[in-house]
Amino acid sequence: MHVVTPDLIAFDEALQLRSGATLSAYHLAIETYGTLNSERSNAVLVCHALNASHHVAGISANGDDLGWWDNMVGPGKPVDTDRFFVIGVNNLGSCFGSTGPASINPDTGKPFGADFPLVTVEDWVDVQARLADRLGIARFACVIGGSLGGMQALAWSIAYPERVHACVAIASTAKLSAQNIAFNDVARQAILTDPDFHGGHYYEFGVVPQRGLRVARMIGHITYLSGDDMAEKFGRAKSAEVLQYGYGADFEIESYLRYQGEKFSRYFDANTYLLITKALDYFDPAAAFGGDLGAALLNTRARFLIISFTTDWRFAPLEGRAIVKALLDAKRRVTYAEIDAPHGHDAFLLDDEKYHASVRVYFHSLARELAL
Amino acid sequence: MHVVTPDLIAFDEALQLRSGATLSAYHLAIETYGTLNSERSNAVLVCHALNASHHVAGISANGDDLGWWDNMVGPGKPVDTDRFFVIGVNNLGSCFGSTGPASINPDTGKPFGADFPLVTVEDWVDVQARLADRLGIARFACVIGGSLGGMQALAWSIAYPERVHACVAIASTAKLSAQNIAFNDVARQAILTDPDFHGGHYYEFGVVPQRGLRVARMIGHITYLSGDDMAEKFGRAKSAEVLQYGYGADFEIESYLRYQGEKFSRYFDANTYLLITKALDYFDPAAAFGGDLGAALLNTRARFLIISFTTDWRFAPLEGRAIVKALLDAKRRVTYAEIDAPHGHDAFLLDDEKYHASVRVYFHSLARELAL
Repeated sequence: MHVVTPDLIAFDEALQLRSGATLSAYHLAIETYGTLNSERSNAVLVCHALNASHHVAGISANGDDLGWWDNMVGPGKPVDTDRFFVIGVNNLGSCFGSTGPASINPDTGKPFGADFPLVTVEDWVDVQARLADRLGIARFACVIGGSLGGMQALAWSIAYPERVHACVAIASTAKLSAQNIAFNDVARQAILTDPDFHGGHYYEFGVVPQRGLRVARMIGHITYLSGDDMAEKFGRAKSAEVLQYGYGADFEIESYLRYQGEKFSRYFDANTYLLITKALDYFDPAAAFGGDLGAALLNTRARFLIISFTTDWRFAPLEGRAIVKALLDAKRRVTYAEIDAPHGHDAFLLDDEKYHASVRVYFHSLARELAL
Repeated sequence: MHVVTPDLIAFDEALQLRSGATLSAYHLAIETYGTLNSERSNAVLVCHALNASHHVAGISANGDDLGWWDNMVGPGKPVDTDRFFVIGVNNLGSCFGSTGPASINPDTGKPFGADFPLVTVEDWVDVQARLADRLGIARFACVIGGSLGGMQALAWSIAYPERVHACVAIASTAKLSAQNIAFNDVARQAILTDPDFHGGHYYEFGVVPQRGLRVARMIGHITYLSGDDMAEKFGRAKSAEVLQYGYGADFEIESYLRYQGEKFSRYFDANTYLLITKALDYFDPAAAFGGDLGAALLNTRARFLIISFTTDWRFAPLEGRAIVKALLDAKRRVTYAEIDAPHGHDAFLLDDEKYHASVRVYFHSLARELAL
């Protein structure tokens, strides 16, 4: 197994954010896999979703922590690091090494907490473009991501058309629905109203809003799985022999979700959760074009691969098809795969044969096209 | 508008519950509409869902509070009180007048709180049978309800086959799915982990777990509406002119859900919420028959009307059809209506023409059959 060590890259040029706020300096945690070729033409940027990080593949030096997309990225894998140079970067505002709400605010000497500015998908893309500059990458062979990562890939193709050869957006959408926003806001309310949140400055009180994070994660988790998959895996299976007539877990699905919530609340930062869900809600590249996504995509130059999963009800195939339709309206080159997979939104993280074959074939064609 | 006054009916015969607990005495809040005929053959029992009550129709004497099913029940309405004598009863354990967790525990002189026993759908039906005895009703022309109310109607047909002429279950299911249970448990966790919950004895602290109730209601509300309906009503409409880059409500759907959560948290009892969601989770009449719902329904004597709504994803048409299939297996007389309505689970409360026509026609046929 490939052991990887993250790099911390410091930036000291002030960053102007869409919110109007400015960050005077920040750093990014990144990992890379494979080798950048001499033409610097084989770089692939992997953008992550809500709770993931720069640790895309391999195991971390300090333990057995496997990268979140290790089944997709590596030697001989669909995104083949024998051919491609892959970069994982932790988003600004996240909690896995890049500057975020838990980092020290140089103006106060205390953690930013609630004073860390909101960051948009477009802000992340700007930051990643600076990272590309630093790494000497003028143009990515591909920008790829699932869910929120797919939004970043789309935003890249719009903001930096000349710097993206191919854009791959998986289990993603060009804008959240009212129902998506609703789920995000309930999760946020659970965190914001947890007495241990302390207006976002909980670090100073030596606590974390764990109750809120647990509930937020449980809600999220329900929406990541398909109802059928949950029925198949858990159904009405009991945790105990007899009903307890109390509020312990009677059903396995309850034990499972509570465990997931508890685990998440121990490693994820609440301010990061708030901030990233807002970035999700705000993403809507068509808004500046009167809601016309085709118009928003008109200046893109990339070729596109869009993948949806049949049982994903968070970002359903309808959303993937809307992107494809808009790309066709804009006369872009687009491949679409709608994968019949049972695992809901989470399918983008799983090792599904048809799904991985689609990505593998696409990257083969990219390699041919770029003579890698 | 018909002004109604609830009655409080006291029962002092001890009630043995499925949990093993006993209630020595209790009372039920009821309302009635129309007149019981001399043959006592025109009584209809309306069973309520999670957050409703005995106040089914008309306006309450103390104000302008309209009954939750006023569009369905009344003179000339689908359940026509010119012909039928309709009874609404607040479930035991609820918080609108019947004995529940907020009532005084005669053993301690303080509110029951967490000591109020869990009550099952079958327990409610037993209690309602005692109420029927008290009112001198040997047999209901119909037991009817939506959602959890439909479960009670089904349970009536199984537990008291000779006492139910017709059973009408709307937007209901014979058992909750893993996803349903999951949503209920997240809501419960939000309440149980609210520091103001005080292990269910918050009454004594002069507080209510309002944070938890708000989140619980927001989650519930999302599942009561269809995604399409939410898209239609709210979409990505903004609450303010510009994005706020903070955690206020940016989108109308957020304002709406927060408002619903706030409103609910001011009138609904948290212990009741916990208790009723458990009753929902536990309901599974087929379980005692090795999962064979047809076998569970074999001794029923009622005729059945089952209604589902196409966009209801809480209790989808699949669930309604499963009940119909089981009734057909059991060679019961069943009518099924699958109503194409946009409003999700909440459709059962709304005035949809096709839906109301189905119920109206069914009650006409009941009236003919019973010579009312």
